[in-house]
Amino acid sequence: MVKLTEVFEEISPADFFYRNRDIAGFTNPSRAIYSTIRELVENSLDACETYSHSPDIYVRISQVSDSGEGPGIYNVRVQDNGCGVPSDMIPMAFGQVLFGSKYKLRQTRGTFGLGGKMAILYGQITTHRPVKIVSSTGRTKIHEYEITMDIQHNKPIILKRRRHPNPDRWHGTIVEFQTEADYTRAMSKILEYMKQTAIVAPYANLTLVDPKGRLYRFIRATTKMPKPPKETTPHPHGIDVEALKRILQATTTRTMKEFMKTHFQRVGDTIARKFLDNAGVSHKKNPKRLEPSEIVRVVTAMKNFEGFLAPDSTCLSPLGEELLEAGIEKEFAPEFVTVHQRKPAAYSGFPFVVEVGIAYGGQIQNAGSVALYRFANKIPLLFDEASDVSWKVVNSLVDWRHYKVPPGAPIAVFVHLCSTKIPYKTVGKEFIADRPDVEREILNAVREAARRLSIFLSKKQHFEREKKRLDIFGKYLPKIASFSARLAGRRDVPDTKQLLRSVMKYGPEGEGA
Amino acid sequence: MVKLTEVFEEISPADFFYRNRDIAGFTNPSRAIYSTIRELVENSLDACETYSHSPDIYVRISQVSDSGEGPGIYNVRVQDNGCGVPSDMIPMAFGQVLFGSKYKLRQTRGTFGLGGKMAILYGQITTHRPVKIVSSTGRTKIHEYEITMDIQHNKPIILKRRRHPNPDRWHGTIVEFQTEADYTRAMSKILEYMKQTAIVAPYANLTLVDPKGRLYRFIRATTKMPKPPKETTPHPHGIDVEALKRILQATTTRTMKEFMKTHFQRVGDTIARKFLDNAGVSHKKNPKRLEPSEIVRVVTAMKNFEGFLAPDSTCLSPLGEELLEAGIEKEFAPEFVTVHQRKPAAYSGFPFVVEVGIAYGGQIQNAGSVALYRFANKIPLLFDEASDVSWKVVNSLVDWRHYKVPPGAPIAVFVHLCSTKIPYKTVGKEFIADRPDVEREILNAVREAARRLSIFLSKKQHFEREKKRLDIFGKYLPKIASFSARLAGRRDVPDTKQLLRSVMKYGPEGEGA
Repeated sequence: MVKLTEVFEEISPADFFYRNRDIAGFTNPSRAIYSTIRELVENSLDACETYSHSPDIYVRISQVSDSGEGPGIYNVRVQDNGCGVPSDMIPMAFGQVLFGSKYKLRQTRGTFGLGGKMAILYGQITTHRPVKIVSSTGRTKIHEYEITMDIQHNKPIILKRRRHPNPDRWHGTIVEFQTEADYTRAMSKILEYMKQTAIVAPYANLTLVDPKGRLYRFIRATTKMPKPPKETTPHPHGIDVEALKRILQATTTRTMKEFMKTHFQRVGDTIARKFLDNAGVSHKKNPKRLEPSEIVRVVTAMKNFEGFLAPDSTCLSPLGEELLEAGIEKEFAPEFVTVHQRKPAAYSGFPFVVEVGIAYGGQIQNAGSVALYRFANKIPLLFDEASDVSWKVVNSLVDWRHYKVPPGAPIAVFVHLCSTKIPYKTVGKEFIADRPDVEREILNAVREAARRLSIFLSKKQHFEREKKRLDIFGKYLPKIASFSARLAGRRDVPDTKQLLRSVMKYGPEGEGA
Repeated sequence: MVKLTEVFEEISPADFFYRNRDIAGFTNPSRAIYSTIRELVENSLDACETYSHSPDIYVRISQVSDSGEGPGIYNVRVQDNGCGVPSDMIPMAFGQVLFGSKYKLRQTRGTFGLGGKMAILYGQITTHRPVKIVSSTGRTKIHEYEITMDIQHNKPIILKRRRHPNPDRWHGTIVEFQTEADYTRAMSKILEYMKQTAIVAPYANLTLVDPKGRLYRFIRATTKMPKPPKETTPHPHGIDVEALKRILQATTTRTMKEFMKTHFQRVGDTIARKFLDNAGVSHKKNPKRLEPSEIVRVVTAMKNFEGFLAPDSTCLSPLGEELLEAGIEKEFAPEFVTVHQRKPAAYSGFPFVVEVGIAYGGQIQNAGSVALYRFANKIPLLFDEASDVSWKVVNSLVDWRHYKVPPGAPIAVFVHLCSTKIPYKTVGKEFIADRPDVEREILNAVREAARRLSIFLSKKQHFEREKKRLDIFGKYLPKIASFSARLAGRRDVPDTKQLLRSVMKYGPEGEGA
C-alpha cells in the first residue's frame, strides 16, 4: 500500500540555473569571478564584431569590502563600444534567463544566451544588490537602468530608469554590479584568459584594471577584422521532426519544391527535385498538408540523402591565417610560426572550420610537453583540457617524434574551431566533444602545421651544424694560412675570407638556403 | 554609426534543452538510447525507494524499423512497481520540462527533473510519435495517457486519456514510446549500466529484454532496503540571499530566534541565540522586517559562523556496508572484499557520505590498472572517468605500492557518494567535481579499505609462501624418512605426517592464522 504521494512543482528556468549554477561555471567564488569576466567580455566582443566595430573593451574590478583572506565583495564593470541594446529590450536582455539574440544559426561566442545573466544572478544572490546597465545604439539617447531579477518567476524588476542625451552618438553597453568573488585565487586564470583573448582577437583593445589598481592593456595589432558571420538557413542534414514542423508552420510556400528551395541551405531546383523523388513526396504537394508519417519520411530522407551540397560556411567567421598569426606573434614573439586553415567541413549539418597554428621559441615555455591553446568561436578554453578533443589529438594521435620535435622543445599548438554550433559538453563551455568529423579535421590541420614545423626544425638543425662547422673553419683557417705563409717564406698571408665564404651554405644572416 | 540592431527573442526551457541536448547526454543515437534507458530506470528506482518498495523494474527495447547498419527506430518500455504518479500530474510530469518532484533537499538519483523528459523529447523529435504513460498510485483506478510535448511553449498536449479499474490495487508506472537509437553501438554500455546498477541496488530485480529477444535478469540478493531519505530543512552554511528571501517570504514566525529554529537544520535555542548575537541582529526582530542590508549581513554571518552543528545526514540514504558488500559479492564473487563507510561530512552546507569497497580476485579482470566503479546517489557513472574526482584519488593520490598491491593484481575499487546535492559538472551526470571536502573523504575511505586489502594480501602472500614450503617438506620428508630408516636398518619407516603437521602454521584449509 502506498501511503504518500509525491509533491510536484514547477520551477522557472532562472530558478533551474540558480539551483544548478555549477553546470554554468559558477561553482565557487573563485570560479564565479572568472566566469563573470569571461561571459561579460564575450558578450561585449560579440556586440562589437557582429557589426564590425573594432572592439574597445574596458574591465574594472574593484573591492567593496575586504574580508581578509578568501572571498570578498567586488564591484565589476565592463564597458564596450558595441552595437548597444535597444532601450525596451534592456530589462529582459539582462534580467531574464533564456531571452536573447543568440538563438540563430550564426557563429557567435555565446551559444546558450545564459552566461551574462548567470553572472548578474550570481552577483544578486551573493550581494542582494541590483545591476546597472547603461546602453545606447548610437541614436539621440543613452539609457540607464537599474534592475533586479525575480528568479522565481524569471522576470526583471525595474528599480530605476533614466535617459541621458547622447550628443556624441556614443554606442555601446556598460554593465556594472557587485558580486562575491575570490579574486586572489582567480587572478592568474583571468589574466591568462585576457592574454589568450588577445591572441584570438588581435583586432581588439582590451583593458583590465584590477582591484589593486594595476592596469593590464592588450593593444590591437591590426585594425583588420574578420568578416562578420551571416545568419543562414539550416542544412537539411541537421533537421529533426521538431525543426521541420516549425518551418512548416511558418512557411508561405505553396509547393514542396518551393519549400525546399526557400528554407534550406544550398538547395536549388535540381537538388530539390532529386531529393523529393528520393523521399517519395510529390514536388507539387502543399507543404502544409504533409501527413505526420510523411513528415517523418521527409526528415529521414533529409538525413540520408547524399545529393545535398556541403553546408554553407558564409555563416562562419574564422580568424584567417593572417590574423591568427598576428595574434600569436603579438603575444609570444616566437622564432617560428605557421598557421593552417582547413576548408569548411560539417558534422550533423553544422558547418565548421578548423584553424591551427604552431609556434616555436620566443616566449613559449616548455612545461614538459607541447603547450596547447584551445579556442572555440574566438573563445579561449582554459579548463578541463584533458577532456577536450584537441588534447586527444595533440597528446595521443600525433606522434611528435615523426616531425623531428626533440623532447622538451618550446612548442605551442593553437587550435581554433569555428562553427554555428560548437559541440560543447558543458554549459560552462569548457571543452569540446570528440565528434569524429571534428577530430579528423583538427588532426589533419595539426599534421599539416607540424610538417611545416618539421621543415623549419631540420633547417634550423642543419644551419646550427653548419654554423659550428664554419666557426671551426673561421678559427683555424687564418692560423693555417699564416703558418703556411711562414713555411713557404711568403710575407703576405693569403686572405682566408674568400675561402671561408666559398664553403658557406647560408648567407651571413643565416637566412635562406 | 550603427545600422542594424539585434533581434531579441524568448525561448522556453523545453526549447533550450531541445537546442542543447548534447549537454544532457543526448548527443547521437547511440548515446541517446543509453541516456534514455538510464534516466527512465533511475526515475523508476527513485519511485520505488522513496517509499521503500523493493523495486521490480522491467525494461523492453524492441525494433520498429530496421535500417540495416546504424540507427533505427526502437520502441522502449519501462515498467516499475513504484509509488505511481497522481492522474492530474501525469501530463506535466512527463510532458513539461522543469516540472517535477525532485526539487527538494533530499537524496534522489534525479537532480535536475529533466532526464526522463529529455528521453521523451528525443523520441518525439526523431519519430514524431506520442508517449504512452500508464500509472496508478494503488487506488481504484489505473490511468492511461497519450501525450506529446509542445516544445515551443513547454506544455504537454493530451491526445488520449483512459481510465481502467484497478481491482488488484496495482501501483507503479509504465512509460512507453518510440525513439531513434543505435542499439548495436550502445548495447555494451547499457548492459554495463544494468550490471553496475545491480551492484549498487542489490535489493532490486532488474529485467532487460533486448531487441533480439535476449533476456538479462539481475535478481535481488536481499530484500533489505536502505532507509528512505527524508526531506530536510537547509543548513545555514548553504544559504544565499535568494534562498533566505524565499524563506522570509514564506515564514509565519514572529521573531528571528524562532525563525532560525524553525527553518534551519539542527538550530536550537542556544545556537540561535549565539548566532544572532554574532550577526548583530536582535533575537526579537520580526523576520519580515529585515532591511536589505540586514539580509546580506545574516547571509554572510551564516556562511562564516562556526557554531552550527554539522549538516543533518538523515536526509541521506547511503547503501550501508552490508548492502554494498552484497552487491559486489553478487556480481563479482571476489576472493576478498571489504567495504568502508565514512561518517557524514559536508561541503557548502550539503551533507554527504562516502562509501568505498575494494575487491580482489573472482571475476574481477585486471585491465592494466585498478578497475574503478563510480556511483553517485546509487547511479553508476560510466562516462568521462578521467575527469572524475574518484579517478584522481585512485590513480594519482593513492600509492598502491604502499599497500603491497603488486602491479597487475585483479583489484576493483567501488566509490559511492551520497548527497542531497552531488556536485556534478554536467547535466548528463557523468562526473563529479573535485570539491576539496569530497576529495578528502574519498581519499580517506580508499586508504582505509586499501589498508585492509593490504593485510589480506600479506596474509595471502605469507600463506602461499608457507604452502610452498610445506609442499617441499611434504615431498622430501617421506623420502628422507625412508632413506634414514634404511640407513638405520629399521624396518618401519617413521610417520612424517605428525612432523609435517607440527611445522604447519595454518590449518589444513588454509584458513585462519
